[in-house]
Amino acid sequence: MAAPDPPAGQPTVGDLGENALVAGVISRFPLPPPWLRVGPGDDAAVLDLPAPDGVARLVIGTDTLVELRDFHREWSTGHDVGVKLAAQNFADIAAMGARPLALVVSLVAPAALPASFAAELADGLADECARAGAAVAGGDVSDGDGVVLTGTALGVLADGVAAVRRDGARPGDRVALAGVCGPSAAGFALLRADATADLPEALGALLVAHRAPRPGYAAGEAAARGGASAMIDISDGLLRDAARIASAAGVTLSLDRTALPRPAALDAAAALLGRPALATSWLLGGGEDHALLACFPPGRPLPAPFRPVGEVLAAGPAPVLVDGRPPDTPAGWTHWS
Amino acid sequence: MAAPDPPAGQPTVGDLGENALVAGVISRFPLPPPWLRVGPGDDAAVLDLPAPDGVARLVIGTDTLVELRDFHREWSTGHDVGVKLAAQNFADIAAMGARPLALVVSLVAPAALPASFAAELADGLADECARAGAAVAGGDVSDGDGVVLTGTALGVLADGVAAVRRDGARPGDRVALAGVCGPSAAGFALLRADATADLPEALGALLVAHRAPRPGYAAGEAAARGGASAMIDISDGLLRDAARIASAAGVTLSLDRTALPRPAALDAAAALLGRPALATSWLLGGGEDHALLACFPPGRPLPAPFRPVGEVLAAGPAPVLVDGRPPDTPAGWTHWS
Repeated sequence: MAAPDPPAGQPTVGDLGENALVAGVISRFPLPPPWLRVGPGDDAAVLDLPAPDGVARLVIGTDTLVELRDFHREWSTGHDVGVKLAAQNFADIAAMGARPLALVVSLVAPAALPASFAAELADGLADECARAGAAVAGGDVSDGDGVVLTGTALGVLADGVAAVRRDGARPGDRVALAGVCGPSAAGFALLRADATADLPEALGALLVAHRAPRPGYAAGEAAARGGASAMIDISDGLLRDAARIASAAGVTLSLDRTALPRPAALDAAAALLGRPALATSWLLGGGEDHALLACFPPGRPLPAPFRPVGEVLAAGPAPVLVDGRPPDTPAGWTHWS
Repeated sequence: MAAPDPPAGQPTVGDLGENALVAGVISRFPLPPPWLRVGPGDDAAVLDLPAPDGVARLVIGTDTLVELRDFHREWSTGHDVGVKLAAQNFADIAAMGARPLALVVSLVAPAALPASFAAELADGLADECARAGAAVAGGDVSDGDGVVLTGTALGVLADGVAAVRRDGARPGDRVALAGVCGPSAAGFALLRADATADLPEALGALLVAHRAPRPGYAAGEAAARGGASAMIDISDGLLRDAARIASAAGVTLSLDRTALPRPAALDAAAALLGRPALATSWLLGGGEDHALLACFPPGRPLPAPFRPVGEVLAAGPAPVLVDGRPPDTPAGWTHWS
């Protein structure tokens, strides 16, 4: 039995697009209870959990990898995919200013999936959990036509550390970046073009960045301790995620392109593919490197490893400006676009 | 690009089956850290979470619904599916003795999914969360070929309540059931046979039980307060889940069939389908009603709504006996079987 066709004339999730779908779904939920400090719509939720004396402040977020969309088994080992699932989930925890604690994982797999893939997957999950200071707490397995992996990460906010939301940017704040943007997208382009043979080491690192990103989680808590006013995990591209910070606060983020760290390997990969302009597209639109973009009030020193990449302005002609102008490069990843 | 074929001769997850796959994956994780009180392998994990003074005891579990496997859009509204996802996740929380607190949800959807389905889904999630005393805390959306929904539920253990694991049954314990087994499987059989027109109310209730189960979550905490030695959410059928309790403790669960609550609608539905023997199969093998099966030490009064359905014996010829004999009815649901 196949899934039913959509009724003619009814809008589909593809018609809505990701942002409108998410906003529409959230609008149907009742107002969050008081203990739900940050509800749906941010990188992760923040809960006050009843504890013997006072509350524990828990952070929880969920993120999914779909085979043939988010990874390909020709290109990635099970270990790679396990690392990637843990990394993208813990990056959401870090983006709230919290420390990764635990991960639960749902695996949907066809019967024909090699058992070795599942074993490698477990190893990759365990490795990245260990690197993040976390543990795999549990999971679920189901039968399905393709591999779908959903992780749910838990984190905790350290004593005296306030959660950093998306929506706190104010005009005058500095915009700062921890990590780099572009390597994952460049690696994906090399893999898709089958341009992976005999690569120099710097270009080979782009493939690794795509297959198994290893974000710096500690930058999130450093930003929170440093008084960050807003923060986001760059999972869908710098411009798109910067626009999310801007839209959430009704401001404009003005980015200075020359301030962005631009690994030489991006230009080398674009040249190899014969399309030099791709390097800037990857820099501004590539997601999945899980760099952290944060805003800091004026006068606050930027905590390491953040570097200044722009400033927050009052709402202007576009949510994001690059070198003072609305960007003309593709705006990053969105589902069903 | 299609997913690769499995290499010839290598075992697949289908060859392993669900139980061996799960055991194999868990075996690759390092030993759980001390704060992970119950790790992978139970209905849900139990974590000690750092709190200002002492710890908060958190329960987390994850469960997935795959379109065409676990639900069909011809048969179920988005609201039904939302209720079902919340119910199966919160039942796992209850099975540890905890109270539902929050749910995060990942939705994988094809572009052609009607937006109305997503809106109904949100409503169903919100309704069952409210019934359980919980809230939707967050989620994620992704593009995929079919609808896959993963929920992750959080719960808390009340002060003075110990988590109830699967593995604590001891010979001499009483076996007890809260809820009924069979209605969801009977409803599924009626739907699959397209025998849904002009049903009397009692049979119509079987369809509802399959589409949108509404378990009694409070029974879980009642069992924990009543000193239960072991407990499981019956999601895959009474015999299969009873066998999980038995195997975890190295005992045999001896069930008394006449003690099991047997709704008259099961026999009526089996008669309608012309196969009277199905009623017993649904009773013993049907999952997704999310009744709770628990064991209680001898002399302990059973807390409401538990009723006695058998006893725990030393390990015998089979993990589960029905009326003193190994059962000859199908053993319930397992993936890739």
